[in-house]
Amino acid sequence: SRFEYVRDFEESDAVMKQCFIVLRIDGSNFHRFSDKHGFVKPNDERALLANRAAHGVMQIMPDCTIAYGQSDEYSFVLRPDTTVHGRRRQKLVSLAVSKFTAVYQFYWAHFFPETALLYPPAFDGRLVLYPSDKILRDYLAWRQVDCHINNLYNTTFHSLIQKQGLTASESEKRLSKTLSKEKNEILFQLGINYNDEKDIFKKGSVLIGAENRKENEGEIDLWEAQSSEESKHLQKRQVLVLHVDIIKDPFWQRYPNLLLPLEEVKKARKRQLQTDCNKKNNEYLFILVFYHALVFVILDFNIIRKSKTQKRANALYYCSSSRQAHLNMKILDSDHRSIQLYFHISIRPRALRQLGAACHLPYHQF
Amino acid sequence: SRFEYVRDFEESDAVMKQCFIVLRIDGSNFHRFSDKHGFVKPNDERALLANRAAHGVMQIMPDCTIAYGQSDEYSFVLRPDTTVHGRRRQKLVSLAVSKFTAVYQFYWAHFFPETALLYPPAFDGRLVLYPSDKILRDYLAWRQVDCHINNLYNTTFHSLIQKQGLTASESEKRLSKTLSKEKNEILFQLGINYNDEKDIFKKGSVLIGAENRKENEGEIDLWEAQSSEESKHLQKRQVLVLHVDIIKDPFWQRYPNLLLPLEEVKKARKRQLQTDCNKKNNEYLFILVFYHALVFVILDFNIIRKSKTQKRANALYYCSSSRQAHLNMKILDSDHRSIQLYFHISIRPRALRQLGAACHLPYHQF
Amino acid sequence: SRFEYVRDFEESDAVMKQCFIVLRIDGSNFHRFSDKHGFVKPNDERALLANRAAHGVMQIMPDCTIAYGQSDEYSFVLRPDTTVHGRRRQKLVSLAVSKFTAVYQFYWAHFFPETALLYPPAFDGRLVLYPSDKILRDYLAWRQVDCHINNLYNTTFHSLIQKQGLTASESEKRLSKTLSKEKNEILFQLGINYNDEKDIFKKGSVLIGAENRKENEGEIDLWEAQSSEESKHLQKRQVLVLHVDIIKDPFWQRYPNLLLPLEEVKKARKRQLQTDCNKKNNEYLFILVFYHALVFVILDFNIIRKSKTQKRANALYYCSSSRQAHLNMKILDSDHRSIQLYFHISIRPRALRQLGAACHLPYHQF
Amino acid sequence: SRFEYVRDFEESDAVMKQCFIVLRIDGSNFHRFSDKHGFVKPNDERALLANRAAHGVMQIMPDCTIAYGQSDEYSFVLRPDTTVHGRRRQKLVSLAVSKFTAVYQFYWAHFFPETALLYPPAFDGRLVLYPSDKILRDYLAWRQVDCHINNLYNTTFHSLIQKQGLTASESEKRLSKTLSKEKNEILFQLGINYNDEKDIFKKGSVLIGAENRKENEGEIDLWEAQSSEESKHLQKRQVLVLHVDIIKDPFWQRYPNLLLPLEEVKKARKRQLQTDCNKKNNEYLFILVFYHALVFVILDFNIIRKSKTQKRANALYYCSSSRQAHLNMKILDSDHRSIQLYFHISIRPRALRQLGAACHLPYHQF
Ligand SMILES: Nc1nc2c(ncn2[C@H]2C[C@H](O)[C@@H](COP(=O)(O)OP(=O)(O)OP(=O)(O)O)O2)c(=O)[nH]1
Ligand SMILES: Nc1nc2c(ncn2[C@H]2C[C@H](O)[C@@H](COP(=O)(O)OP(=O)(O)OP(=O)(O)O)O2)c(=O)[nH]1
Ligand SMILES: Nc1nc2c(ncn2[C@H]2C[C@H](O)[C@@H](COP(=O)(O)OP(=O)(O)OP(=O)(O)O)O2)c(=O)[nH]1
Ligand SMILES: Nc1nc2c(ncn2[C@H]2C[C@H](O)[C@@H](COP(=O)(O)OP(=O)(O)OP(=O)(O)O)O2)c(=O)[nH]1
Ligand SMILES: O=P(O)(O)OP(=O)(O)OP(=O)(O)O
Ligand SMILES: O=P(O)(O)OP(=O)(O)OP(=O)(O)O
Ligand SMILES: O=P(O)(O)OP(=O)(O)OP(=O)(O)O
Ligand SMILES: O=P(O)(O)OP(=O)(O)OP(=O)(O)O
Ligand SMILES: [Mg+2]
Ligand SMILES: [Mg+2]
Ligand SMILES: [Mg+2]
Ligand SMILES: [Mg+2]
Ligand SMILES: [Mg+2]
Ligand SMILES: [Mg+2]
Ligand SMILES: [Mg+2]
Ligand SMILES: [Mg+2]
Ligand SMILES: [Mg+2]
Ligand SMILES: [Mg+2]
Ligand SMILES: [Mg+2]
Ligand SMILES: [Mg+2]
Repeated sequence: SRFEYVRDFEESDAVMKQCFIVLRIDGSNFHRFSDKHGFVKPNDERALLANRAAHGVMQIMPDCTIAYGQSDEYSFVLRPDTTVHGRRRQKLVSLAVSKFTAVYQFYWAHFFPETALLYPPAFDGRLVLYPSDKILRDYLAWRQVDCHINNLYNTTFHSLIQKQGLTASESEKRLSKTLSKEKNEILFQLGINYNDEKDIFKKGSVLIGAENRKENEGEIDLWEAQSSEESKHLQKRQVLVLHVDIIKDPFWQRYPNLLLPLEEVKKARKRQLQTDCNKKNNEYLFILVFYHALVFVILDFNIIRKSKTQKRANALYYCSSSRQAHLNMKILDSDHRSIQLYFHISIRPRALRQLGAACHLPYHQF
Repeated sequence: SRFEYVRDFEESDAVMKQCFIVLRIDGSNFHRFSDKHGFVKPNDERALLANRAAHGVMQIMPDCTIAYGQSDEYSFVLRPDTTVHGRRRQKLVSLAVSKFTAVYQFYWAHFFPETALLYPPAFDGRLVLYPSDKILRDYLAWRQVDCHINNLYNTTFHSLIQKQGLTASESEKRLSKTLSKEKNEILFQLGINYNDEKDIFKKGSVLIGAENRKENEGEIDLWEAQSSEESKHLQKRQVLVLHVDIIKDPFWQRYPNLLLPLEEVKKARKRQLQTDCNKKNNEYLFILVFYHALVFVILDFNIIRKSKTQKRANALYYCSSSRQAHLNMKILDSDHRSIQLYFHISIRPRALRQLGAACHLPYHQF
Repeated sequence: SRFEYVRDFEESDAVMKQCFIVLRIDGSNFHRFSDKHGFVKPNDERALLANRAAHGVMQIMPDCTIAYGQSDEYSFVLRPDTTVHGRRRQKLVSLAVSKFTAVYQFYWAHFFPETALLYPPAFDGRLVLYPSDKILRDYLAWRQVDCHINNLYNTTFHSLIQKQGLTASESEKRLSKTLSKEKNEILFQLGINYNDEKDIFKKGSVLIGAENRKENEGEIDLWEAQSSEESKHLQKRQVLVLHVDIIKDPFWQRYPNLLLPLEEVKKARKRQLQTDCNKKNNEYLFILVFYHALVFVILDFNIIRKSKTQKRANALYYCSSSRQAHLNMKILDSDHRSIQLYFHISIRPRALRQLGAACHLPYHQF
Repeated sequence: SRFEYVRDFEESDAVMKQCFIVLRIDGSNFHRFSDKHGFVKPNDERALLANRAAHGVMQIMPDCTIAYGQSDEYSFVLRPDTTVHGRRRQKLVSLAVSKFTAVYQFYWAHFFPETALLYPPAFDGRLVLYPSDKILRDYLAWRQVDCHINNLYNTTFHSLIQKQGLTASESEKRLSKTLSKEKNEILFQLGINYNDEKDIFKKGSVLIGAENRKENEGEIDLWEAQSSEESKHLQKRQVLVLHVDIIKDPFWQRYPNLLLPLEEVKKARKRQLQTDCNKKNNEYLFILVFYHALVFVILDFNIIRKSKTQKRANALYYCSSSRQAHLNMKILDSDHRSIQLYFHISIRPRALRQLGAACHLPYHQF
């Protein structure tokens, strides 16, 4: 129609290439929302609902390798070379925030079975660019330090109210200008060791996406699905939930691929594969690090085959309390579409027990 | 913390002043969504749910004077001099799309009582600027022409399938390269007069906000509230739903304030007020235009008082089938917070009957 | 080459359609430049050099209808529907500022025959968008008010120094917090009537482009050309220099086309033409307004011919001291490429004398 | 004034932090300009004028560490953490392009003593961001490869015309679809070894800024100044001109600081200094690399003194044909503002002779 010229007023808003894209979502007026819905103070474990919503966003953003959430906010990090939605700013922001909002509400009843949703919660969103992995890590550190500061404050604030009967304004006054150390001491006097607080509150939540989609169907399902449609959707991509420090180096050494361009991950994968196959005679030894309180294993095998000799096997393995385990893996035989594997795991007994049903060991046929 | 510098990477994204802001929201992959949830083809009246969601957006965007919706999309027009959220692009887009998503889901069960929501629906959003009211009207015309074209096509397409037993691809073939006129003829041969189709489908939905908020509590409630929290929220702002032509002039003559800067509306209001009070001796005569099929009245009184002589009374009045009515209004008496009014309405009997319970006439005490 | 991907990092920076484009150029550190080159204080008439530079910019920006200059700055206004250089911000800014810089230097010796250029002067530039003619006029008013305020201040400041022997700091002190009125009084006491100051300093310079290019070769040359190459270039487009008020309405009534979209100018032109030809039987009467101190005539004829009957002739005519003249013009005969015209000018004798050689009247053959 | 609100329509256009800023300037319609002014084909050595203009830009952009020029274009690279002009895009582009234009014209007569400037040349400009040094190097490589391709083509094209009497179109035809190798062969048959062509044409020009300004006054002056004002200006910053490969690693190993953030350069400098002073007992040994055909030395000493023990001495040293020289430097004595140095250079005789007058060795008193 003769009106179509108005379309040209839409500006192109593709963001700069090769920069990390961070999408940050924050609850709109969640002070009121948490109040009206009786959220436990200072932290409500049902707020795990936010992790579920974040998981939903990760499903539609395949290049989001890591997400970090705390309080009423969530940050999603996309690889620097992502081309999803043409890197269009408004598409990315609006779809992420809409998906987050929708999934949050969809699973409300599941996480808050006894609290009716009084009114629909809304979120704001923004996209921020970071040119280097160094600065990107500083971004995540900024959010996690923020989590720590607020959580220490809130914990002390509410302890003073709940355990010492102070009013809100007395508690606020008491804490004004106190340093971290002093807050820790106040807590200690109230019989609380801040270190014993739950990691999910002290550290926030870290989501990392498994590298290969459409695998491990039938494996560990991190989330219970509400309906068949939604569950199809969920299985697209495995996502791990951690509550760990992401400021210091160990986390990033543990997951060295998170901040790499996809291009480089692919190259590295190919390179590593060839090395492994040639040098190690089809036998793999994985040094596993027990990292946090929840235990699960994702076995993530993928076979890329240009010639018969190219094979690939990854194993992501998580278990409790930061000890080491050894996973020895040998390729016994393989044809074009399957690979037979032998696993030997040397692992401390307690950890083994925890692994339990989750792990289809020692033999596994694909 | 030493990480706070990362905040500076957020760019300021306030959009150009004095331009109309259009926020357009569109269902993400609604082809699948309407399919999976068995939407009636080509048009499902339950899609009025979208109007409800749009109403939610209008509540958080007080400077949105008009919104237009059709198919899976909705456009919101903000006055050119709005300063809401500092005119920040991403704030506006994300909050609008989040609110829309949230309210859509919140009222799902109300509009689709027999269809469970299988998975959470998402929407994309964008902000477009238009420098003049002329171009802004062309924008809305573009959307309404789009509505017409698609609706005529879809109606014919599905009629051929439903009434003549054609397959989808046969129907598509039959319609390829046909002009509007030919589609009308095909429909006519199938016993359908396209003009008799419902306006809501032919014209889409036009929402216009009543000018003054926090008034008319207890008056006509356009929407049933689901919960007390949500209903508080709803009563903030009255919104009218029309299904009328917005391409030609009459609509814009009928609502001359929609595209004015707020500044000018205020000035005009003040000017008119003084004129009215001085010249007409506290007696008002409103010429009312019967405009469309639904009938309701919004009585919108507001008293601005610098001196005792400044009074103001607006009456928005809508009724059916585009005939005229006369509303004569006289200020009988007033004190600081209330105003007593006498109404006389000369109106055709049938219209009067339709007004029914909605109208607390002939006397109304505030 | 494999490096070409870096090209994609160039962002598209086309500015919003249908908005007026203003390019403002300002001398970089002209405090020093005017000092080192001994500019007369407060105003140096040789600064007309800037007008020449601005004329150069108007040659490469055909859609620049009006430019305004004062002190070390110049603003160029482009029609809202210009598509020059794809409305790319950086192209427009850089070409304008480069051209301005280059022409300024090129004609330096011509305007400052006794002062060697000590070092190359530089300018900064920026592009600003304005959505409506109302705001655009406010922009130009902003610059002209700025001119007035600074000029009144500077004139008084330097008069106190030159006529009363004050030091710079004494003069500054004397003027601090004085209103316009008080400055006028101070000047009056020093024997200066500010109203008698030259318009070029009180009002700045206004350039307006003749509507049709590549005409009038051999006609009045506003600028003396330095070389044949440059003079070819200059004759592309006639430009008028005025020193008049552009804040109030008369100027804009006098030149009603300056702020119209080209589209509308064309339509209006066509409409007017047809009217003229039909109704006035090929005879034109122009009411001419004597506008300012310089006298010249631009005869701007253009023939657009779809059929034999469509002819067109415009005459822009300017002369001194704001009196009226009448220009009667009759189309005597015409073939495909030429048009014979008869002019009769009824004009006050003094003005006629001023017109002198510039005007090839009464007969002119193209 | 009441018009000042229009100022708010200026958008803030500061570019993203921590990204490399590239300013690229390109001659506007230089096809015509080089033609009209009789530039030698394919390359005119007088085009060194462009280097002079680029030098002017480097004076006003202290964070520009490297610039690269070829044909009618020049690229300027600013350190990623520069804050010059608040990183405002239009300020940077306009000032750079204006300065370039101005200096180009200012020195025209110096470089083209026998050719009058027929009309003022103009340039366009743009700012492009690059997030990493890897991509930045690819950018420069892109321009240098472009230089090579065009130069090989042009050299062959004009040789066919000049040596074999082909017409322009015959020559074009002959070269269409030829590979580099074939062009080299054609040249060889015409008695030209492309490798013997001048580096300035094969490689373009690389400008690198000496790290410390306001030093070395009285030392080697790369440019002859036209006037005292301009020469003051020139001495602000020493700039080296090279015609070398910047695609491969050696260049970047030779100048490791060019792409570092200023922050890191400062840190490194401090660190190195302390190491040097402590470990080497005030004696410095510099391994110098003979790099290209022009020979000169810049001795760049700077003393930063928090305590008496902190001293610093840099020596930039360039000579011909890529061989090594050793520069041994010992701090003999120093007071607050001066430093006495002893230099011993072990150097191949021929190179030494080339150093000639330029080098105030073996003793130098500051
Ligand atoms: N009681 C309780 N409150 C929470 C919890 N998580 C978040 N909140 C609340 C505490 C804060 O008031 C609020 C988050 O603070 P924000 O700075 O985001 O402010 P708010 O969302 O109110 O306003 P905004 O629209 O973001 O500017 O959410 C929780 O687990 N328990
Ligand atoms: N059956 C039915 N379908 C509808 C109704 N309203 C909208 N739809 C469907 C028809 C279209 O397939 C779809 C809207 O088309 P779009 O161009 O927005 O595409 P879609 O949302 O599938 O993809 P997108 O993510 O927007 O690119 O929504 C309705 O009332 N009944
Ligand atoms: N004596 C004299 N000075 C003039 C004349 N026209 C302009 N100027 C000088 C006066 C001001 O110092 C200067 C313009 O002021 P600006 O605000 O543009 O500052 P300036 O150019 O020094 O710095 P900038 O780089 O624009 O921030 O130019 C003139 O005709 N005569
Ligand atoms: N004869 C000769 N020509 C040169 C020399 N250096 C540059 N040129 C000319 C050759 C090209 O026609 C022109 C540069 O090509 P461009 O692609 O920049 O095109 P041009 O500047 O004509 O148009 P533009 O405004 O940049 O789009 O400059 C030289 O040393 N000698
Ligand atoms: O909480 P943030 O980081 O969003 O910061 P803010 O102070 O809420 O600011 P805004 O949401 O308005 O950007
Ligand atoms: O339907 P629209 O107008 O959004 O247009 P589109 O073709 O879907 O394009 P986009 O990728 O901008 O949503
Ligand atoms: O003189 P202006 O209007 O350019 O304003 P300014 O104060 O010089 O500011 P800038 O040139 O830095 O935008
Ligand atoms: O020569 P470039 O790189 O500037 O590329 P172009 O094809 O001239 O394009 P433009 O100058 O219009 O960006
Ligand atoms: Mg916020
Ligand atoms: Mg919040
Ligand atoms: Mg928050
Ligand atoms: Mg779309
Ligand atoms: Mg859609
Ligand atoms: Mg749609
Ligand atoms: Mg300025
Ligand atoms: Mg200036
Ligand atoms: Mg100025
Ligand atoms: Mg170009
Ligand atoms: Mg060029
Ligand atoms: Mg070029």
